Amino acid sequence: MEPAETAYSLIVLVIVLAAAKIGGELVERLRQPAVLGELLAGVLLGLTALGGAASNPAIAFIATIGVILLLFEVGLEGDLDELRRVGASAGLVAAIGVVLPFAVGYAVTLLILGDSRQALFLGATLTATSVGITARVISDMGRMSSAEAKIILGAAVIDDILGLLVLSVVLTIAASGAVDVLVLIRDLGIALGFLVGAVWIGIRFANPLINFAQRLRTRGVLVSVAFIFCLTMAFAAEELGLAEIVGAFAAGLVLASTEDRVKIQQRVKPLADVFVPVFFVVVGMRVDLAALSPTGPGRWTLVILGATLFVLAVVTKLAAGLGVLGKHANKLAVGVGMVPRGEVGLIFASVGLSAAILTPDLYAVVIFIVFLTTLITPPWLKAVFERWSRPPRHRGEERGGTEG
Amino acid sequence: MEPAETAYSLIVLVIVLAAAKIGGELVERLRQPAVLGELLAGVLLGLTALGGAASNPAIAFIATIGVILLLFEVGLEGDLDELRRVGASAGLVAAIGVVLPFAVGYAVTLLILGDSRQALFLGATLTATSVGITARVISDMGRMSSAEAKIILGAAVIDDILGLLVLSVVLTIAASGAVDVLVLIRDLGIALGFLVGAVWIGIRFANPLINFAQRLRTRGVLVSVAFIFCLTMAFAAEELGLAEIVGAFAAGLVLASTEDRVKIQQRVKPLADVFVPVFFVVVGMRVDLAALSPTGPGRWTLVILGATLFVLAVVTKLAAGLGVLGKHANKLAVGVGMVPRGEVGLIFASVGLSAAILTPDLYAVVIFIVFLTTLITPPWLKAVFERWSRPPRHRGEERGGTEG
Repeated sequence: MEPAETAYSLIVLVIVLAAAKIGGELVERLRQPAVLGELLAGVLLGLTALGGAASNPAIAFIATIGVILLLFEVGLEGDLDELRRVGASAGLVAAIGVVLPFAVGYAVTLLILGDSRQALFLGATLTATSVGITARVISDMGRMSSAEAKIILGAAVIDDILGLLVLSVVLTIAASGAVDVLVLIRDLGIALGFLVGAVWIGIRFANPLINFAQRLRTRGVLVSVAFIFCLTMAFAAEELGLAEIVGAFAAGLVLASTEDRVKIQQRVKPLADVFVPVFFVVVGMRVDLAALSPTGPGRWTLVILGATLFVLAVVTKLAAGLGVLGKHANKLAVGVGMVPRGEVGLIFASVGLSAAILTPDLYAVVIFIVFLTTLITPPWLKAVFERWSRPPRHRGEERGGTEG
Repeated sequence: MEPAETAYSLIVLVIVLAAAKIGGELVERLRQPAVLGELLAGVLLGLTALGGAASNPAIAFIATIGVILLLFEVGLEGDLDELRRVGASAGLVAAIGVVLPFAVGYAVTLLILGDSRQALFLGATLTATSVGITARVISDMGRMSSAEAKIILGAAVIDDILGLLVLSVVLTIAASGAVDVLVLIRDLGIALGFLVGAVWIGIRFANPLINFAQRLRTRGVLVSVAFIFCLTMAFAAEELGLAEIVGAFAAGLVLASTEDRVKIQQRVKPLADVFVPVFFVVVGMRVDLAALSPTGPGRWTLVILGATLFVLAVVTKLAAGLGVLGKHANKLAVGVGMVPRGEVGLIFASVGLSAAILTPDLYAVVIFIVFLTTLITPPWLKAVFERWSRPPRHRGEERGGTEG
């Protein structure tokens, strides 16, 4: 451990945490979700000399633990039976939300740029929902138990699995121009097998695991065992090509079925309180505003392409909300919840950039879309939920009250 | 953020946490303190391919946060008035515990090796107590409010300030062969000024700070503000040349004076539960067992030197326990609590190594002493406390019971 390196990480962490609290507090006074303030605080920090700190390994790792803990908490509030009840809706929302943005993005890019491989990649970047923002807004409003929240979360997990397939497709096309259907089926099988298997097995062994942990004598066993389980599942998901947060969500679902669910939630909360905001500030810091102002010839084509793709990115995910079956959930709320794009889209774009299919300017277009969809969702989602949904449930009051 | 790098840090963290729990549990069943099991688990991990992971920036940073949180918790249980009451004893214990090991270590090394500069450095490495181990053992036993604990903590803080002076002395002697008394007085003034000033000012502003935090609306404000304050003080201490943990301890003392002390303790506990064991496992992983078996000519001189210095390192700190005035604390318990050496000693040794005054073999001697004093203290301290001290107080039962 280099003392100087540690001291630098320390002061960056202090600044990031302070910026998160200040940003969150300011926008909450404007009746906007705290996460919006954290993102904006991150964007501002990104303009300073601290911008590069977002890729500091220690800070990046703490940010990752933050988003893992967020989805772990969301899973802990989950209810498998209710998730199963909204399964059909979630599946349909996910399917529309992947196919429609991909098809429309592909067509429009082909029309404007005339390059089918570029169109393929830009279409792919529009498919994957980044559920972190939505989960945070809904969780802060205490609406995690609403039907809308369940559908969005279910759809986001399916979305992530479909995104894995889309990634396989574009990767093989980028490399060879052809698609290997067998590989696709294998990847799909692994992903589904992991999720279903982990949750199915996990639920059978969760109570014995927690009972065993309770019999241990060292201090803090419950929170440690829960945390270890959550990180292990996140790691396993990551190794299988899924997002880490999918594993963390599954871990939360499993532990939600135990008798000590409430105790675990109470112990995990202070950890999440500290780490989750780090993730959103770091997301903000990673936005490269300089990349968003193209110059030189062709810049108007880029501006038109970016604006069109942004509008389509929003409209197609709103349309995915129409996949909600029956009247048990608000279609608009679900659609808005699916709007934010994030890491997965950026991964697609990076792959395209490394394969020399996308230009740096087209990569900037993707960053622009990710940034804007991330930024418009929190206030929009809050407004939609407040207008259409039932009044806040007990959890919201509880959470507000625990530290009042 | 490199996904592969993050995944590696994730799995290392999982293994470190699991090793901590398994090691801690096994030794607790042998009625030994958990921290001993964590250290030994770390030593075993260090022998595997994971050994290098101790210097992974993300893991090293989490370990640092662990020891910062440990001393923050210790500070939160502190009581300034009582610390002041034991001030004279603590000062005397620290003074004996620095002067005696230095003088004896210097003399013996000079006798065996005949090199006065090497003797100077090896004497210096014997001065500084590493309070982490002791604090952890006493905290796990629920004896933080005992007179012995207060004297040890007070002495350790003074010890750290004196260690700073010793470091200045050996550094200037290594560079120029002379000592600048003005620089020494300046360093001492800065360190004392920081500690006294931070605590004095802090206590006046702590209640307004916490009241302000309570009026904020974002979630988790109390734990965030406490955590930010603790990290800021740790960073400030580090920048002034003190150990980070001295700043964290001062931050805990300051917040201990607020009305929300208990609430803060409850919120900080899950964070500490997860991070503190990481520190001790990493300390174990950093032990290079291979360096401890010297070969070639002169190895018997080294073995004799190492064994002699180890015995003297223990005896001189036990003698420091005689500095306890009156009969309000057990002298042996205080002496044993001062035995462990750690980071500061290793820093002295590294300086000597870079200045080509110490040889790699002599550096290994220092590691050997640090390792052995660290390893013998937990069981010894526990035995002494159980034999001599009053029966466990309410806190011990509380801690044991919160997760039972």
